[in-house]
Amino acid sequence: MSTGSTHETTDAELLVTERTRLRRGKDKGRTARADLHAVLADGFVCHLGVVVDGTPMVVPTVYGATGDTLYFHGSVASRSLVSASEGVVCVTVTHVDGIVLARSAFEHSINYRSAMIYGVPRLVVEDDEKLSGLRVLTEQAMRGQWDYVRQPTRKEMAATTLLALPLDEASVKVRMGPPDDGDGPDAGLGLWAGVVPLINERGTPQPDPALPPDVPLPPHLRRLNAP
Amino acid sequence: MSTGSTHETTDAELLVTERTRLRRGKDKGRTARADLHAVLADGFVCHLGVVVDGTPMVVPTVYGATGDTLYFHGSVASRSLVSASEGVVCVTVTHVDGIVLARSAFEHSINYRSAMIYGVPRLVVEDDEKLSGLRVLTEQAMRGQWDYVRQPTRKEMAATTLLALPLDEASVKVRMGPPDDGDGPDAGLGLWAGVVPLINERGTPQPDPALPPDVPLPPHLRRLNAP
Repeated sequence: MSTGSTHETTDAELLVTERTRLRRGKDKGRTARADLHAVLADGFVCHLGVVVDGTPMVVPTVYGATGDTLYFHGSVASRSLVSASEGVVCVTVTHVDGIVLARSAFEHSINYRSAMIYGVPRLVVEDDEKLSGLRVLTEQAMRGQWDYVRQPTRKEMAATTLLALPLDEASVKVRMGPPDDGDGPDAGLGLWAGVVPLINERGTPQPDPALPPDVPLPPHLRRLNAP
Repeated sequence: MSTGSTHETTDAELLVTERTRLRRGKDKGRTARADLHAVLADGFVCHLGVVVDGTPMVVPTVYGATGDTLYFHGSVASRSLVSASEGVVCVTVTHVDGIVLARSAFEHSINYRSAMIYGVPRLVVEDDEKLSGLRVLTEQAMRGQWDYVRQPTRKEMAATTLLALPLDEASVKVRMGPPDDGDGPDAGLGLWAGVVPLINERGTPQPDPALPPDVPLPPHLRRLNAP
């Protein structure tokens, strides 16, 4: 656990390393492991950063997080996944919660929660972990779905690359609340200031046009139906 | 325009280079420049990928796009922006539109629109372009806001790094529609399949608690008020 650490940590606290130490916006930093898990639990698409021939490559990728591991997957032919299994990656998960409208252009900001995780992913080769990792990933996108659908065949398993990234080295940043200039000289300008919230919701499930009309929406998807 | 190009292109088509050529999911590729602009116009937060000491770093960053340039900015002290101005970056913009629920775990997918742009950002030093670039950026997040608020001072301008990335080398991928297994053997399983749409909306503006009660919501924000 202490590899690369520059500070004493407990299991409840995230490691602070040269890479994860915040240089700026330190007031936005969160160091509790629970904060990392809260950010990760609230999404299922990350941005995976790898270096290919010296050039950065940032690929949107589906992930699932459980305990001390983040799983992500793709085709065995994927260039980014091949690179990911050969060196350090940076996985970033971002939730954009609002647009912070201040009295000055300079103080405009974004309310967000983001996590950056560094590490060398491990290729998951063992069938049991591969299945449970894929389950975590599918369930994170839509709870109840894994047990409802047809499980992967041996051939499908072989066509899927699953990578496991340890949640050891991560930083979390959160900005929330109103703009910062409410008690500064610009407050006297008489301008409106506040936050425009960004709402992220799941809509009513849209059936595949190829679906026979008598196939019912399964129980785990019914709560998504509009009232 | 033809640096690094491996194919003839027109101005209406995106350059295809070794970096932007799609290896997989070619059916999802879009090569019209208009497709790139549509993806960029629909967001204001990108994921900026840079290489710092050989390691990838992926940072959520506000952007604005206009014509043939994508602008992004940050503090002059930002480690990622310093790195960004020293080499090739990858800027990725992703919109997640839906969760594609298929009959098999393997065929599950995401409906999305994404753009990846490669290039060496140029540091904007000239005041006029810096102001107009910051305007593009602010207006993309909230139209009408730039002319409403206090403009940047000389000191604020100096504290801001603005980078301009040419929209020359980019790839666009789009997946939409139902799952792909509606006409395969799994269609006979009798399972529900379809898409759970993800809805992204701007909510009702929340006033800064420090705001005096007599400051009205300006006209350009009124359309965001809930009916």
